[in-house]
Amino acid sequence: MRLARYLDEERENYGVLTSDKITCLPRLAKRLDMQLPELLRDFIASGIGGETAEKQFREATKEDIESVSRPINEVTLLSPIDFPPKIVCLGLNYRDHAAEQNAAIPDEPVIFIKPHTTIIGPNENIVKPSFVKKLDYEAELAIVMGRKAKNVSVSETKSYIFGYTILNDVSARDLQFKDKQWTRGKSIDTFAPTGPSITTENQLQDTSNLFIRTWVNNEPRQDSTTKNMVFNVYEIIHHLSRIMTLEPCDIIATGTPAGVGFAQKPQPKFLQPLDIVRIQIEKIGILENTVTEET
Amino acid sequence: MRLARYLDEERENYGVLTSDKITCLPRLAKRLDMQLPELLRDFIASGIGGETAEKQFREATKEDIESVSRPINEVTLLSPIDFPPKIVCLGLNYRDHAAEQNAAIPDEPVIFIKPHTTIIGPNENIVKPSFVKKLDYEAELAIVMGRKAKNVSVSETKSYIFGYTILNDVSARDLQFKDKQWTRGKSIDTFAPTGPSITTENQLQDTSNLFIRTWVNNEPRQDSTTKNMVFNVYEIIHHLSRIMTLEPCDIIATGTPAGVGFAQKPQPKFLQPLDIVRIQIEKIGILENTVTEET
Repeated sequence: MRLARYLDEERENYGVLTSDKITCLPRLAKRLDMQLPELLRDFIASGIGGETAEKQFREATKEDIESVSRPINEVTLLSPIDFPPKIVCLGLNYRDHAAEQNAAIPDEPVIFIKPHTTIIGPNENIVKPSFVKKLDYEAELAIVMGRKAKNVSVSETKSYIFGYTILNDVSARDLQFKDKQWTRGKSIDTFAPTGPSITTENQLQDTSNLFIRTWVNNEPRQDSTTKNMVFNVYEIIHHLSRIMTLEPCDIIATGTPAGVGFAQKPQPKFLQPLDIVRIQIEKIGILENTVTEET
Repeated sequence: MRLARYLDEERENYGVLTSDKITCLPRLAKRLDMQLPELLRDFIASGIGGETAEKQFREATKEDIESVSRPINEVTLLSPIDFPPKIVCLGLNYRDHAAEQNAAIPDEPVIFIKPHTTIIGPNENIVKPSFVKKLDYEAELAIVMGRKAKNVSVSETKSYIFGYTILNDVSARDLQFKDKQWTRGKSIDTFAPTGPSITTENQLQDTSNLFIRTWVNNEPRQDSTTKNMVFNVYEIIHHLSRIMTLEPCDIIATGTPAGVGFAQKPQPKFLQPLDIVRIQIEKIGILENTVTEET
């Protein structure tokens, strides 16, 4: 099941995303004499989980579903989570990406944190400030946490995951490389496009070999698979949970594969205004955003 | 005016902290036929500001104040803000601290972000995980933002500040130096003791030369002044606001002076269980926390 947050006539809603329509989950529940939280973040935090919601969805009649569905082009998709308690990101977590910059593979996850003010949704603009000259994309599989997690063993982590989405870890390479600390260049407003939806954990149980691809204006740039990850999603949650209490709606971006702009040959290719960045991850979807210049 | 958040018979409250008592501000307002938000974070976000509240406080009679005050030892002080939208921290922002580790002084602020799960209040325990061997303190003046700020010029920043508090940027040096990225070693649960209160901006208009001191078990460790800062509070807000939208209740930790544990001579002195870390900043107060071992 793919869950999306969206605006329907100015009202925030969430529901099940299929190829051409979105079915409002709280309204469907109501029709079936059940009740679901009105906001996706509360649904995630409630612990109901994808499986229960999916069962409900399957039990509904075609008529039930039609009555609470809208064509996808009549609503506006939003970032699945607008205010995650944390956005924790891994660096150097793909062997091919570490190789393209001659960096050593870490033996524990190396992390940084993006502020929630970086988040934008599908089709929203990535805004390039004029002082940023080396703007870059990073396609990443992002974990959405479903439960509070502290000191969780690798084998237990699965039950703490709500689902998966895509996060584009947009980076100002000039700031990132100047500072040596990565945070500033990755913390600019709009630098975390997220979405288009969350594929729930029960739907996507195996993340060990998903293709992950990026195009800029239809030119292929990243084309890898999650099997190139140094730490898989379970190891990542285990390691992070030894450091910090993970919480429902936390987003964990699991690193990017080879093919980022600064590593293009024979020379770097940075993002320019009007460029369209499209990221696709298998079984998750397509996230597309256009670059604009800050005015 | 010093505003503190506290627990009074299990109930969260906030009020004006004086030497021996705390005066509940929402209850005082009610007595004067006015109304204030019930939570400190809402008071900050409301934009009422310290000056208005102080005026109210001055207009109250002695009897008014007594009737809504409690002796300080009968309540539990909490971290002034439990869920800041962001905790942005500066590195290498004191000339004396840069010098003690032979680091260059940056020409723009170098930042990292701590997750909100690091926050604890006055007298709460800093919990040292067993895998951390090099635990260290960092006394920091922390700005509490009062208004949304984006692209603010240095001269305008003052009106965006709600006040100031103390933040101890507790750091696992082993993780920090191993990763090179500072985030992980500074993101462990309990690694941001904060408080004891917020001195409002109208009360503390000049932060250019405040003493800032740390003791570990009464042994003096840090003894400097904010005049050693590379970027002052206004320059910091200006620079950060070009990167990200700052919001009410954001905490900005402005860096630490010389005298941290890893730079002690002739050899480093790291924190051990039962150590008591006491930080004092002029016109702000004293923040004290004890180290315990994770069980």
